[in-house]
Amino acid sequence: MTALAGVHLKAAELGKHAVHMVTQAGSGHSSSALSIAHLVIELMYRRMRWDPSNPRHAAGDRLVLSEGHAVPIVYAAMADLKTIVGGEPGALLAMAELSKLRDRDSVLDGHPNPAEGMPFFDAATGSLGQGLSVAAGLGLAARLDRTGRRVYCIVGDGESREGQIWEALDFIVDHQLINVCAIFNCNNEGQAGYVSPQQSGETLAKKLAAFGWDVMSIDGHDPGAISAAFDAFEKSKRPFAIVAKTVKGWGVDALQKGNWHGKPLPNEQLSAAYESLDRFAKDLASGAAPLPAVVKNAPQGAARIDRPRPAGAAWPSMTDALSAAGLESALKSRKLASRRAYGMALKVAGDLLPQVCAVDGDVSNSTFAEIFAKAHPDRFFECKIAEQNMVSVAVGLAAAGYIPFANSFAKFLSRAYDQIEMANITRANIKLVGSHSGISLAADGPSQMGLVDVAFFRAFGTVRGDDRRSPLCWSLQPADAFAAFGLTRAMIETPGMCYMRTHRPDVAFLYDDKTQFDLGGFHVLRGGDDVALVASGYMVHEALAAAEELAKQSIRAAVIDAYCLPIDEAALVSAIVRCGGVAVTCEDNYGGGLSSAVAEAAARAGGLRVESVHCSRIPKSCRTPEDVLDYCGVRAHQIADRALSFLRRPS
Amino acid sequence: MTALAGVHLKAAELGKHAVHMVTQAGSGHSSSALSIAHLVIELMYRRMRWDPSNPRHAAGDRLVLSEGHAVPIVYAAMADLKTIVGGEPGALLAMAELSKLRDRDSVLDGHPNPAEGMPFFDAATGSLGQGLSVAAGLGLAARLDRTGRRVYCIVGDGESREGQIWEALDFIVDHQLINVCAIFNCNNEGQAGYVSPQQSGETLAKKLAAFGWDVMSIDGHDPGAISAAFDAFEKSKRPFAIVAKTVKGWGVDALQKGNWHGKPLPNEQLSAAYESLDRFAKDLASGAAPLPAVVKNAPQGAARIDRPRPAGAAWPSMTDALSAAGLESALKSRKLASRRAYGMALKVAGDLLPQVCAVDGDVSNSTFAEIFAKAHPDRFFECKIAEQNMVSVAVGLAAAGYIPFANSFAKFLSRAYDQIEMANITRANIKLVGSHSGISLAADGPSQMGLVDVAFFRAFGTVRGDDRRSPLCWSLQPADAFAAFGLTRAMIETPGMCYMRTHRPDVAFLYDDKTQFDLGGFHVLRGGDDVALVASGYMVHEALAAAEELAKQSIRAAVIDAYCLPIDEAALVSAIVRCGGVAVTCEDNYGGGLSSAVAEAAARAGGLRVESVHCSRIPKSCRTPEDVLDYCGVRAHQIADRALSFLRRPS
Repeated sequence: MTALAGVHLKAAELGKHAVHMVTQAGSGHSSSALSIAHLVIELMYRRMRWDPSNPRHAAGDRLVLSEGHAVPIVYAAMADLKTIVGGEPGALLAMAELSKLRDRDSVLDGHPNPAEGMPFFDAATGSLGQGLSVAAGLGLAARLDRTGRRVYCIVGDGESREGQIWEALDFIVDHQLINVCAIFNCNNEGQAGYVSPQQSGETLAKKLAAFGWDVMSIDGHDPGAISAAFDAFEKSKRPFAIVAKTVKGWGVDALQKGNWHGKPLPNEQLSAAYESLDRFAKDLASGAAPLPAVVKNAPQGAARIDRPRPAGAAWPSMTDALSAAGLESALKSRKLASRRAYGMALKVAGDLLPQVCAVDGDVSNSTFAEIFAKAHPDRFFECKIAEQNMVSVAVGLAAAGYIPFANSFAKFLSRAYDQIEMANITRANIKLVGSHSGISLAADGPSQMGLVDVAFFRAFGTVRGDDRRSPLCWSLQPADAFAAFGLTRAMIETPGMCYMRTHRPDVAFLYDDKTQFDLGGFHVLRGGDDVALVASGYMVHEALAAAEELAKQSIRAAVIDAYCLPIDEAALVSAIVRCGGVAVTCEDNYGGGLSSAVAEAAARAGGLRVESVHCSRIPKSCRTPEDVLDYCGVRAHQIADRALSFLRRPS
Repeated sequence: MTALAGVHLKAAELGKHAVHMVTQAGSGHSSSALSIAHLVIELMYRRMRWDPSNPRHAAGDRLVLSEGHAVPIVYAAMADLKTIVGGEPGALLAMAELSKLRDRDSVLDGHPNPAEGMPFFDAATGSLGQGLSVAAGLGLAARLDRTGRRVYCIVGDGESREGQIWEALDFIVDHQLINVCAIFNCNNEGQAGYVSPQQSGETLAKKLAAFGWDVMSIDGHDPGAISAAFDAFEKSKRPFAIVAKTVKGWGVDALQKGNWHGKPLPNEQLSAAYESLDRFAKDLASGAAPLPAVVKNAPQGAARIDRPRPAGAAWPSMTDALSAAGLESALKSRKLASRRAYGMALKVAGDLLPQVCAVDGDVSNSTFAEIFAKAHPDRFFECKIAEQNMVSVAVGLAAAGYIPFANSFAKFLSRAYDQIEMANITRANIKLVGSHSGISLAADGPSQMGLVDVAFFRAFGTVRGDDRRSPLCWSLQPADAFAAFGLTRAMIETPGMCYMRTHRPDVAFLYDDKTQFDLGGFHVLRGGDDVALVASGYMVHEALAAAEELAKQSIRAAVIDAYCLPIDEAALVSAIVRCGGVAVTCEDNYGGGLSSAVAEAAARAGGLRVESVHCSRIPKSCRTPEDVLDYCGVRAHQIADRALSFLRRPS
């Protein structure tokens, strides 16, 4: 019992740091941190098999702090345990660094973030409800890699109101991830008030049982109970959750009076807080030895995982891949939907690269991720209709070194835009593919159409990543099957987030096996010197038809396939200059995407004129792509009309 | 029992229409429609109190079809019951119209949508998992209005994997909305495969009980069981759910073999399908009389609700409002955070207008919706940490004639971007307010910052609404407290979706009680003729400081407060022309927002040059707004530097 009682002493010791660092920062969450002190100490000192000198050890157990705002106690433990932080090769986190919490020059960000020098963590958290899904992704990867890794995830009680938590709980049961331990921290206090009785420890325990979990309810400040619960988790053959009743501001009298959520104690109250913590610890652990500042259990296994590429593996040509897939008919008709070409490319990538995997949300027969799923069932994870969980699972897989492709309709990926932004903050190497984008799916109507996706993802593309060159996200739109095939490969070969939108209808081939699709580039499909029609994806075909119509009026329109955002601005400006300095953009979505990218390039350069043709109204169901394109004002004849009137307008 | 047996005959009759219309459309979901035939018939013919000649009757019960793809059976019932469709005054839905499902010229969209001429519905559905939250909003409104309205919501089993369903279930228990009946349609088949055992009828019933619901599990094709379940709902004093086991493709042999999800029967199989339905019905209802084509129960109560404005009520000036709120200190310091001014304005609006209400997600003490909550507790609904449910609840409130303000951090509203787009498709009159937008909250780090919000909401602003003039959404950014006050009022007085982003720090007053904030407008805060600095929100203050710095270098920079997107393009272009045709935009977010709006206006006009200054990297925690602005490259001195180099660059 001595070691267990020592947990109290350590809780008081680290608690002082947590309170102090938040006061130094002038903001932060010491009261939440104190509520998980015992849980974190049991995990980091006594339970988890991990190596502070190599927090990314492939066999090391992981802690996902879903309620990221409680992080100060983890930082304090990391410093006490001499954990490596910072970029490669990194440095020991010094105790003195703790007082720099939230400072510009410190790795101690307000919330966990591996990308700001915290390899102890796998994903940025802080937007609530996402951690358990990340843990599930790590658990899937551990099972694939047979590392024996365990993944612990701490979720707040108020946080468990987020629906994504319940998606993750379902997913973990579906996949029987008994290597993931879900820990609910029930301190009963939210930000604006108490948590709902729907999130009380008692109700959570009932809900978890109904969701198919084994549940142990404990006092989250009782080291013996905590240890017993983790013992039970290690032995459990079913998904296992711990419901821990805790006290917000444990050990500090002042923090238990009134609402201190997210508020630092004033400097002058610090010494009373320290005394209070000492008193609590002494009462609970009289005569016990302090817990030593060492990690009890080292990871067992290789520190790195190699996933060697099969010998002699090489990308086939698209034509060969089509033949191998039994799709010779497309070679004859010279038509194929970009979504189907993508599915085929993903399957080929899976053949070549053992780290490629995929998740889908019950639409794999629409996204064509099913082609991959059939060939690589061990690396395909059905997430059912729960896109938030799906994206965060992908983040967990990526943290373990996989290259996950997350698939759904472009519209339904918007369900996970917050998760996608958190993945971006994590700098997760995930690939997102949205099918049925734009309006060409027609009959199903606007609830199934990706209309704001280009604007959303392009926003990330306006910002540079840590290398100060690459964008935070590449947005890709293949105009034919060859482009879909080539861009799928480019996504894999490009680190970081990429988004590709595919379309439902079969479209004619525009390219061949020799065409290169470099990120940042574009292709000029038709020459002209009066106006440049700049399009992407499905709309390239409309732009080509519009150019034909303009030719009848003796207007020579060039057609540019801008398959990638961001785009090489200088090259694009030159191309537009060659067209008399006039461009018309053509999109099957709302504005803010390609139109904005081209206009910004033009406006920065000066001397050019750009008109934008995009959906002019909310679409409705129409039976054909042609009908809905016309309804939304983006059919070839409408593009031609708009180009003509723009050319005739005095500048 | 005759009437009940007649439900089978009606199910077969309407089932034939459902199968036929999907085949005519060439796409759609007859198999899902057949699975809910009996439930829909019991509701629409025998249970709901509603008026087909006035589907919007204020006392009429409502049906929210959360699994919107199953809608063909509802359309068939509407036609049979001679329901009014289309815009005012509307027309009877004819049986012949059914064969125009999903046609461009038909009101019969692929998924329910009130805005396409379906007043029977309250919200566009089709993106799954949102309907129960809309039903909850309608239930709140019915309770406020004391109409006695009941709200029925049909949710698919696969759909119930969406976390938002579980958020809604919690919310309904929290608010004890016993006027909402949740009906789970368990046909056990999804799109790509069977639903998970986690969504089986048995597991759903267990989960619902653990969530605090009374549950009745029934055979969803047994009219007697259905009727008994609705009887039980009407008598229940607790939230009540029905778990209905159903058959996908009920009554049609062919549709029960293989995966027919979303696929029409071929024409040549129609007669066999009709025979199959007749055989099913005859077996079940031999000798019964067909159910008459009438609605059994009429709504009881007034058809319209008046919420009269208090006599003599008028908007106070901001100065008077500050004094009344005990915030005279701000009048002295001449500083106030826009989020606090907004909260005050919302409270004032609540005083004046009984239809103004608010929802928040456990951050009302940050968004300052708490000022409204304290004054109008009956119209404030705490949604806890569940933003998806929060936004869809607002849609339900709006459908009932309220003007709901949905509040959270700008970042956390991104959790509900799919729900927001569905609200947009609904043309819901909801107001979204995101606090802590941009990066000026500093210390909490990027997980709490609204960085893509302007790009996202601006995309809707590039498209015109049904009047072909107003944008689908106005995006507003107040630069000071007066602007926040004025723009809150403008949101209320402008129909449709509006988004306002507020900021955390106190900022100096720029305006006074006399300033008008017209939507589409902007204010020139400082004259100049060398360059226009175009900014909004917090960044207006940086732009003003940058203009000061430029003045030291003899550059006369104008400063434009572009508080609204979309913006009056012609006026903006004129203002930039007066500044030598050169503009620099200044934003505390990623690109795609103001920068794109100004560049597009400039590029459309021609002859102008625009440079964009926005966050150049992912932010991290910094202890002050100044630090994080500098870190992201958007401090006044950086704006001035960028403006100088842009001015010096040859165009």
